[in-house]
Amino acid sequence: MKKVALILSGCGVYDGSEIHEVCAALLAMNQAGFEVQASAPSGPQMHVINHLAGEPADGESRDILTESARLMRGEIIPLNELNPTDFDAVVLPGGFGAAKNLCTFATEGDQCTVHSEVETFLRSAHSAGIPLGAMCIGPVILARVFGNELNPQVTIGNDLATADLVTKMGARHIDCQPTGTVVDKANKMVTTPAYMLAGTITEVFSGAKNFVDELSKLMD
Amino acid sequence: MKKVALILSGCGVYDGSEIHEVCAALLAMNQAGFEVQASAPSGPQMHVINHLAGEPADGESRDILTESARLMRGEIIPLNELNPTDFDAVVLPGGFGAAKNLCTFATEGDQCTVHSEVETFLRSAHSAGIPLGAMCIGPVILARVFGNELNPQVTIGNDLATADLVTKMGARHIDCQPTGTVVDKANKMVTTPAYMLAGTITEVFSGAKNFVDELSKLMD
Repeated sequence: MKKVALILSGCGVYDGSEIHEVCAALLAMNQAGFEVQASAPSGPQMHVINHLAGEPADGESRDILTESARLMRGEIIPLNELNPTDFDAVVLPGGFGAAKNLCTFATEGDQCTVHSEVETFLRSAHSAGIPLGAMCIGPVILARVFGNELNPQVTIGNDLATADLVTKMGARHIDCQPTGTVVDKANKMVTTPAYMLAGTITEVFSGAKNFVDELSKLMD
Repeated sequence: MKKVALILSGCGVYDGSEIHEVCAALLAMNQAGFEVQASAPSGPQMHVINHLAGEPADGESRDILTESARLMRGEIIPLNELNPTDFDAVVLPGGFGAAKNLCTFATEGDQCTVHSEVETFLRSAHSAGIPLGAMCIGPVILARVFGNELNPQVTIGNDLATADLVTKMGARHIDCQPTGTVVDKANKMVTTPAYMLAGTITEVFSGAKNFVDELSKLMD
């Protein structure tokens, strides 16, 4: 059975992992027969967003790993306890948490830095020939970590400003339909726009299925 | 287009709505062409559970509606602003929040009371001939509100102790397979076990699809 490491960033689109994307990926991976181990770094989120008001909840602080655990019914392991070479693939879902907690893209754009545990994990996995997948805004992490060395092909959909920042980090941005994927065979990377473009949870799930199919091919 | 009111209870299996169940229901409803309006009562959750540690987060307080908003990317309306007769069906997903925040079943069993806004909404919907659906532990709310008057047929899977409490509240409990449904045509109610029995998110989604199919038939 293929094992996938799923790296989460909290629970909720505006300050953590996008919930529908994570569930769509979990469903697609389960249907494909993959075993999933979820993980996240410990430490405070950049901030907490009140998702009803759509604005920061001043004075509140939440832990990335603890909130991510909500998405997995408690079944999660700290990222620094995970061995990349135990896995057949790594998946980064989207949500602002990917750009706020796993890297600083939301505030620093192409000058962003990636959480050291995430960068170390992704570099080790890639060095071991393990395919990397990213959804929605997740590809900015691949662009930041591998852009200058590997010039990987990735997609964040078709948002011009974001695509420009991805390009500035050294990756090659390819426009993509909502449920499509961009596959970089040489670098073993798959990306899909998800809610960067999707209008419905049905589109998110269709994209997740295509994404998992392509990831599966890269594992062979 | 059929409109469904989805009543949430927070965000996370141990103190709110079960996330996979909500996403499975949203996906199944979107695939069926339903328009969904999510809602929840405002007010503090019974408590906050640290989903990593699996124990209460002492001193923390979270609002039911605000946390539920995470599941809907912010698109949610307070329950007391929703008119039941604007809808073609009402859906209650599971998660401990249904038994802790929408009623007191988790602490008071068959002596529980239901949140007044939830009870009022369900009674008005039922009186208007609108079908009611509940997943996982959600059916205890239907049992408490309608048990003694209507003796509805419902399922919470096959857990003996819980089934016994459902029966004590006046409902008729029917054992059910993980992805099955129990339909009470006369009372226009559909229930499905979801994570009361399901072992995977694939089973939860299969059950949600069957549940939505049956709910759809009751709307005709």
